[in-house]
Order: sequence, then structure tokens, then C-alpha cells
Amino acid sequence: MNEYKVKILPMQLEVMVEEGTTLLEAQRLAGLEPDAPCGGKGTCGKCLIEILSDGPVRTEKACANRVTQDMTIRVIEKNKGHRLLMEGASQEIDVKSAISSAWIKVDPPKIGNHNTEWQRVKNALSKVYAFRKDRDFKIELPLLSGLYEQLKDNDGMVDTILYKNWVIDIRNKKTDKFGIAFDIGTTSIVGYLLNVETGEQKAVVSMLNPQTQFGGDVINRANYAIEEGVQILTQTVRKGLNELIEEAVQKAGIDKNDIFMASIVGNTCMHHLYLGISPKALVHAPYNPVMSEKLEMRADDLNMNINPNGRVIVLPNIAGFVGADTTGVLIATNFDAIEEMTLAIDIGTNGELVMGNKDHMIACSTAAGPAFEGAKIKCGMRGMEGAIDHFELNGTTFKYSVIGDLVPLGICGSGLMDIVAVLLDAEIIDETGKLVSAETAQSPAALANIDRLVELNKERIFVIYRDEQDPRKNVFLSQQDIREVQLAKGAMAAGIDLMAKTLGIGISDVKKVLIAGAFGNYMSPKSACRIGLIPQELSDRITPIGNAAGEGAKIAVLNYCEFQKSEKITQKVEFLELATRPDFQDCFIDHLSFE
Amino acid sequence: MNEYKVKILPMQLEVMVEEGTTLLEAQRLAGLEPDAPCGGKGTCGKCLIEILSDGPVRTEKACANRVTQDMTIRVIEKNKGHRLLMEGASQEIDVKSAISSAWIKVDPPKIGNHNTEWQRVKNALSKVYAFRKDRDFKIELPLLSGLYEQLKDNDGMVDTILYKNWVIDIRNKKTDKFGIAFDIGTTSIVGYLLNVETGEQKAVVSMLNPQTQFGGDVINRANYAIEEGVQILTQTVRKGLNELIEEAVQKAGIDKNDIFMASIVGNTCMHHLYLGISPKALVHAPYNPVMSEKLEMRADDLNMNINPNGRVIVLPNIAGFVGADTTGVLIATNFDAIEEMTLAIDIGTNGELVMGNKDHMIACSTAAGPAFEGAKIKCGMRGMEGAIDHFELNGTTFKYSVIGDLVPLGICGSGLMDIVAVLLDAEIIDETGKLVSAETAQSPAALANIDRLVELNKERIFVIYRDEQDPRKNVFLSQQDIREVQLAKGAMAAGIDLMAKTLGIGISDVKKVLIAGAFGNYMSPKSACRIGLIPQELSDRITPIGNAAGEGAKIAVLNYCEFQKSEKITQKVEFLELATRPDFQDCFIDHLSFE
Repeated sequence: MNEYKVKILPMQLEVMVEEGTTLLEAQRLAGLEPDAPCGGKGTCGKCLIEILSDGPVRTEKACANRVTQDMTIRVIEKNKGHRLLMEGASQEIDVKSAISSAWIKVDPPKIGNHNTEWQRVKNALSKVYAFRKDRDFKIELPLLSGLYEQLKDNDGMVDTILYKNWVIDIRNKKTDKFGIAFDIGTTSIVGYLLNVETGEQKAVVSMLNPQTQFGGDVINRANYAIEEGVQILTQTVRKGLNELIEEAVQKAGIDKNDIFMASIVGNTCMHHLYLGISPKALVHAPYNPVMSEKLEMRADDLNMNINPNGRVIVLPNIAGFVGADTTGVLIATNFDAIEEMTLAIDIGTNGELVMGNKDHMIACSTAAGPAFEGAKIKCGMRGMEGAIDHFELNGTTFKYSVIGDLVPLGICGSGLMDIVAVLLDAEIIDETGKLVSAETAQSPAALANIDRLVELNKERIFVIYRDEQDPRKNVFLSQQDIREVQLAKGAMAAGIDLMAKTLGIGISDVKKVLIAGAFGNYMSPKSACRIGLIPQELSDRITPIGNAAGEGAKIAVLNYCEFQKSEKITQKVEFLELATRPDFQDCFIDHLSFE
Repeated sequence: MNEYKVKILPMQLEVMVEEGTTLLEAQRLAGLEPDAPCGGKGTCGKCLIEILSDGPVRTEKACANRVTQDMTIRVIEKNKGHRLLMEGASQEIDVKSAISSAWIKVDPPKIGNHNTEWQRVKNALSKVYAFRKDRDFKIELPLLSGLYEQLKDNDGMVDTILYKNWVIDIRNKKTDKFGIAFDIGTTSIVGYLLNVETGEQKAVVSMLNPQTQFGGDVINRANYAIEEGVQILTQTVRKGLNELIEEAVQKAGIDKNDIFMASIVGNTCMHHLYLGISPKALVHAPYNPVMSEKLEMRADDLNMNINPNGRVIVLPNIAGFVGADTTGVLIATNFDAIEEMTLAIDIGTNGELVMGNKDHMIACSTAAGPAFEGAKIKCGMRGMEGAIDHFELNGTTFKYSVIGDLVPLGICGSGLMDIVAVLLDAEIIDETGKLVSAETAQSPAALANIDRLVELNKERIFVIYRDEQDPRKNVFLSQQDIREVQLAKGAMAAGIDLMAKTLGIGISDVKKVLIAGAFGNYMSPKSACRIGLIPQELSDRITPIGNAAGEGAKIAVLNYCEFQKSEKITQKVEFLELATRPDFQDCFIDHLSFE
């Protein structure tokens, strides 16, 4: 049987194939991956090529044309971009990662031609990346070491992997390329392993932030860093990320070297500690970060165990305690394109708020979070097995649900909100936040539950679960717990008020409330409004949007333009420093009571 | 005594000084180094300032004006650039290193101002580097770690050290900044320690290239790398450079951390081995480098022990065996600005040639060097103590000189040239290169020295020094040695011929011959022409220019524009690959005989 040469443009590939081979198959033999969903049946019209040796003639059926002589064809790239609907995000994004790859054919060295191997690689790349000049390409030095032999052994056909204009790997065969997006929270770290070409999520991994051993909240952790040096905290979190990478590649069954980039979001303190920057500036007035700009670094410089030439991008901070995690929320929600007045709330260990629309965005930070994560609440705990997560009143009977259907061990954030809301409605907590006593109980629900209204160490408490054997295992709400909720909700409500005031709008002008953070999925919007964490008039405009900070990190991995845009967004956001507003204290006190 | 505040622009410095202090002294108290060669006598007119609080009034005598109230002054920068006449170079260069520094006053953090420390550093830098936008500045991450405290402890007054737009160090006080230029030769490595602000040379250090243990010439060394892996050679030379750095800082009495950049020149093989690139491409047709472009790297990535944020620049190669060392020669000689036809010859272990002028430059490489470095010559040795370095004929008596005035141990390159030239004139070598025997001797000098014309192992030799006790210690020239000289000079002469031919000129159109390399300083131009290494008609146009490759490396450290320009020059140079010229063999054979 005769063999013919098929030359494939624009990649300049050449392949010898047997007579009668389809042009689709010829592309595959040349190492390409033509898009042919119909499997070569000639029905999908996706394998668009031009047969240049015939005219040129354009055909949508490479699969229906067979090789009968030497031929030259040109592959027409259809819009091969993947589009992805991000979780909780209002936008579809194009998958256009900073990581790209090109299967190229590099010309062999020729006597009389003085082009170096690298120059010939650049020449081949210029044909694929027509928008770049060849002098724009850069290469990581270690890849040059064996380049002469690699090209020789593979007849010049290699897969080049690029981070923007940097060649960061050259491989003998095509492989999938991955990125990993990290959301470094004060309490937990989540990693999302993504295929950077398709956007497909290959694994999600998470862990307790191992820095927790040095302080549960931002302030304690920052103080530890200031006293003991930031390095120990930096090493700890970087080691944590490497453990997550290890876990993610095992889950997905891939090679660590195939992860070519990572992205990072986190609050300003987590941001600084990850980068090895002392958080001292954050805890002293005027509470600014030391740096806020987005960063592009080499993975090596951050001790991250992905491909040795891989890159890490860090999203920019906004200001003070409004960090790169909030930037992630803004990207994920496409906030700077939103027409209607919107309030985004990210409740983590801190509460970060953004209000506005595409024309004017205001951000602030409040210490709302810790109470809802269990801190400073006597029976408080995180949202894990044994936590009371919901609470309601049926007539005069209280009902609660426990995560894992176990005997209750404590109260998590959503449970705390429900309990306070329900006890307010039941007139067991009055509008100043005072818990009624057995003596002062008047409402039917209070009277029906008078045995729950007791004192412990001279403090009024409301017993939710009573352990008959061991009263130390009782689960209850204390007067002091209610005060903590009041402080948290007062700060957040005051923040919301002052943001609206600064924007020159009324609260009811806010058309949409987006609750980011896992907590947003669990809490009852009704309770949040009842206790005044969110203004009552917005109760039917609340949408939980999941871990939007993490979504932002994922978008940064999958779409480099969005990452670039992120810094511009942060510069557009006006930062409202609550502490410096003369009207803050007044507004805060005003919001301490329940209505 | 009263104290007054002096504000100094454009640096935004503020200093409190006693009444009556001169404005010159006030600048010094603010940490500046005003240029006042007269020592404050009011005679040099260099300390140019504007007193803004007075009008403004411009004065050239900051030293003659005293502080009598709070004042604001503006320092006028005169052209403070240093100009340097480079050794052996035809040009004066401006000292404008990629390394610069700025003593700045960073605004303190203020409540209500959300600028980060880094933003405020950028703001201060923008005032000094008015041609840069503040977003252009970048900073090495480790410098941010303690930036908040550093600024606080120093009232915001710090010395910032930049590599181009990158802040690579921030210091509490001003110090000198250094760079080091390396010329990595096949045989020896030279390092030049330079003050990057004044251009002053602080130390010169050199060593035998420690890679010599893996092969004395380029080909043997390349083969070792190909067989055993390039890493061992890379590590060896990098370690060597670090030893030279150690030696240089000790000689100059400075701190390694004050070296902020280094430059590298070397032939293509040394270039590849330093960078860790396999030299395989260099020793297989078509003998191209794997990469030629200039490089800017971090010192860390090349294991170079200078300031941890320092940079290393590597000059570009031209082609084949015409490497970055020749690029150095081109920069040092400002070759691309030369009007008249010029021939530059760099005789090291290889001989590299460039012919042309600013309009057309041609380069080629020949294996001329090894014979003149002692390789393959029976009594050959390097130009060190005990080497016969000059040789002449007085009537019929031969006279030689020996380096160090010792008993001769061998013959170095310049001696070899002299001996062959003198023996040709004495008709002891005939024009075919044959040594006369005692039997065929005819000329008076031959007859007078007939006892020197003997045979050793059936080969004719000419004895130069006879050791009466131990004939093994005799120093002589053998017939085979003359053949080696013929091969070397034939190759070089053919190269020169073909370059002229390609340029379309005659040999006599070459107006200037520049001999680079230490060897150029020692050899006799007359002998070089007599043996035909350089055409006879050029004998009175020869100028030795010293280690011009090394000068090129120094210029690259001291003037970043020259470094940038270097790549453009290499792209303008036409590479003449002698091996592929069909007329080379003919021309080569033609030049084997002596005239």
C-alpha cells in the first residue's frame, strides 16, 4: 500500500500515512487531538480543515476526506474555549488560563542555518501564538539543558507548556495540565484541583488551617507572629498547602508535576503570613496591609511542591482587614458589572462586607464572625457533628436538630442565630437582650419552659438540652452569649448602615444580598434578619452563594484576564474604615438592641 | 540655641538642625551625600540648590547659606554620571548601571490613609525616578517581611537599592554598591570587582578554570559533559566563581551582600557549561548553540553567592563557537560604531575573528589558539615562569628571554611565534615548513648553529637550550611543532581571507587590527606577521587591546544600555561558518606554507 505525506498547518507537522487514511486520523497520527464528537462519522461538522493542496477547499469533514496523494491541510481552530458556569457565581467564564500548551513541530538543525534550538522552538511557537512576537517568548533555563537531544529524539515534535509567554515545560507527549486554587481561611484551608484546559474540577481537599495551633483568631495569630517571628507561621501554612496538594493528586490520580499553577486567596492576615510578611502593620493603627498588589511568583519561591517551573498567583488585597478573599468574592460575583445595588457578605472568622454596584463599591470589615464560629460562646462549637444547627418553636415547645442526629454537644453559628431569634419571638429574650428569669417570665412559651430558665454561677441561662447524669454536659445559652451576639450583629448592622449612608442610599435600595462562605448555606436568612444581623427589609432578597472567595481563586486559575482585572477592581473599591468614622459608635450602640 | 526644620526636596526629607548650620551640612545630616569637592569652602559651585522658602532663589553655594529659620530647599541634580575610559577600549562609557539607589523619605502611616508600606515606598521612589510610573516598581518579597518596623525605626528614611525597576534591598544607611564582571575562559577565569556607582575597580581576581580537570580544551570538556552529565562541570565552575567572589571581597575589604549584580562572558561552550546546558549541540553539525540570547537571572538561580536578591546578566552568544566573549570584545571596542574596516582577533584557547565596520560585521572561529597555549607543542607551556617568551637572532647568534629570568623550562605562545619567525628568516625552516638537517644546512646562521640541528626519535628538532646533565630537560622546537603552527596559522589566515572576500574587500583595506586577549600583549606583531598568522601588509596596523572580552563584561555591569545593545549587535553580525565554505579547504592549504 502506498504511503503519502500529509503536512498540517499552522503547526507545520508532517506525517506519513497509508493511502486511504482519513484526514481526521492523519491529524491524530501527527499527535493532534482534533475535536470530533461524532467519532469520525462525518455528522458533527466540528473537524474543520482547509485542504490547501486542492485549491484551497474548506471542508467541515476531515473525517470524510481520505489521503490519496501528498497533501497539505490547514486546521481551522473553532472557538475551542470551554465555558464554565461557576458555582454560586452570576457569570459564566471562558476557560483561558495563564497556562496554555502547544504541540509543535520544531525544524531540525540544518547545516548553514545558525538558528539555535531555542530560536527554532520560538519560531514554531510563533506560528501557534500568532499574536506574540518570537522575542517575547522566554524559557526556564533547566529546560534548555537537554533540549538538543530531546528535539532530536522526538523528531522535533514536542508539547510546550507555557505560563503566559514563559515556556515552563517541554514534553515528549501530550498530557493534561492542572492548576490548584487555594482559599486560606483563618480556620480552614480549601484546595480545588482543576484541569486548566477544560476547567473540570478534579478534586476538592480541605484541612483545618494548621496555624490554628498558634492562635484561633486573626489577632492571636498575628500576635504570635510578632512575638515569635513570622517564619514559623509561614512554614506551617506552606507545609499545609503541600499536604493538600499531595492529597489532591492522590484523589485525582495525577502527577504533581502536571500542576503548573496555583492561586491564593485569604484575608490580609493569612495573606501576609503565607508570604512571610510580618502582620505587625495589620494590628497597629492605621491597620493597613504592608502590600496589597496581586503577585505572580515562582512556586519554588513559595516552597510549593507543584511542577518546579510552576507559578503561583496571589490575588490582591483591598485594604485593612478586607483581603484577597473578598477580592475573590468580587470576581466570583462579577461585582463590578452589577447594575442593581448589592450587598455581599462574607462571614468567616471575620465578616467582610461590600456594598454597591458597578459604579461605586464600598467595603468594610467587622469582627462579626467569631461568635458564629463558636468563639466566646459558652456552648459554642464549629458546625460539625453534635452541633445544634437549627432551633424552632412549635406552639410552646422547642425543637432542635443536631448535625449527625447525635446527642447535642454544643451550638454552632446557624443554631445560635436560630436560638436567639426564636427566644426573641417567644419573649424569653427582651429587646434590650436581657434573658427573662423564672420570676419575670410572662409569655406563654416562657411560662411553659420555666424549668429551663435557671442560673449558673450567678448568670442567667436558658437550658436547651439537659443531661440527666452530668449537668456539665448541658447545652445552654447564657446571658453573656446573647451579649456577644449583640456585639457582633451591632457591628455588622452598623457597617451596613454606614455603607448605605456613604453611598447615599437607603437600606431598602439594596436589591440583593449575597451571603458568601459555607455559613451562608446553613444559616436561616429569617433568623439572621430577626436578630438584626441583616436588616429585616432585606430578608427576601438573600441568596447564599457558597464559598465565593474560593470560586474567585478558581476563576483566577482558569482565566488570566479575570486575575489581571482583579487588581483594577480592588482599586475601585472604596474602603470604609469603621473605626475612624465619628458616627460609628452611635450607630453601633443604636444597633445593639433587638427590635 | 534654636533648632529649625529644613525640608529637602525632591526627596521629601526633613531634618532638624541648629541655627547657623549650612545648607550643605543640613543635607548631610539628612543622610544625603551632596557633591562638594571644595569641602564646603564655597569655591566649587557644585552644591546647587534652590531655596524655595525664599522665592525660590537658586544658589550654587549651599555651603554659604545658613539656616536661620524653617526652610524648604530643592537639591538640583547636576549631571552626576561618572564617565570611565575603559582599558583597551576605544570608548569612554557613562556609568549607568542597572543597579541604582535612592535615599528616600517614606511618609509615615496615617489614620485615614489606606496606603500600604509598599505603596508609600513606591510613592517616594516615584519622586526620585520621575521617568517611572509607580506601578512599574517591583519588590523582592523577603524585603516586605520587616518593612513596617524598618520604616518605623528609621522614621521612614531608608536607602533603596534597585536593579532596574526592582527594589532588591532596603537599608537603614547608605553603603557602596558593587558588581562583579566575570570572563570565563576555557583556561582561566578572571573577575573584576567594580563600584557600580563610580565605576571604580576595587579588585581583580583570577584562577585556573577548575573545569580544566575534566579536559583542557573545549572539545574534551564538552565530551566529558556529554558522557558524564553537564551538572558536574556546571557545579565546578559556579563553585569557582564563588571562590573568586570570596577572594575579591577580601581584597577589597567589602561585604559580599554589597555585590548586587554580576555579568558573565565566555565562549559558547563555557557559556553552556556555566548555565547547565548540555554542549552536545555545539559538537555536532551544524555546531549551533542551544541558545544565544542575553539573559538576566537571579543570582540564587545560578548559585552565586552575592546579595541574595542580586542579579546575574549573561551576554549573548553570536553563533557556533563565537560566543559571549566575542560579544564582549565588540562592546569594548564599540565595534558597531567603527567607520574604517577593522579586524578584531581574540586569541584564547580558540581564535575568534570579527572583521568589518559599523555597516557589516562578519565573525568566524578557528582552532588557532591551542598551539599558542602550549597544547600539542612538545616543549610547549603556558606563559608562566620558565617559559621562553621571546627569541631573536643577532648575526648568527640566537638569544632568548625567559619569564622570571630562570633556566628555560619550555616555550610559550609568543616564544613559539618568535622562534618560527626567526628560524624562517635564518633559513633554518624553509617555506614549506621543513626544518633543515645538519646535512642540508646552507645559510650562515644554520651553519653556525649546526650542533642544534639534531634528531630525536627520528624526528628533526632544533635545540634551543641544552641541559648538560639531563638531555630530557632540553628545550627544542620539533618538526611536528612547526606543522602545528602551520595548521593554526593556515586556519586563521584562511579565515581572514574568506572574511575579506565575503565583505568584498582586499586585505589591505583593513585599516586596523585589534588583538584582544592577554596573549596580544605579549606576542610580537612582527613575528605574527612573519609566520603568516596575520597578513604581512597589516603588520603596522596592529594594536593590542588587552582582555577586551573582560572589558565588555565590565561595561555590561556599569552600563545597562550597553548590555541591552549587545544583543542587537550580535544579531547584526554575520556568522561565517568556515567548514561549510566550499573554498575553505583550498584557501587553508594555500596558507599552510610560509612565504
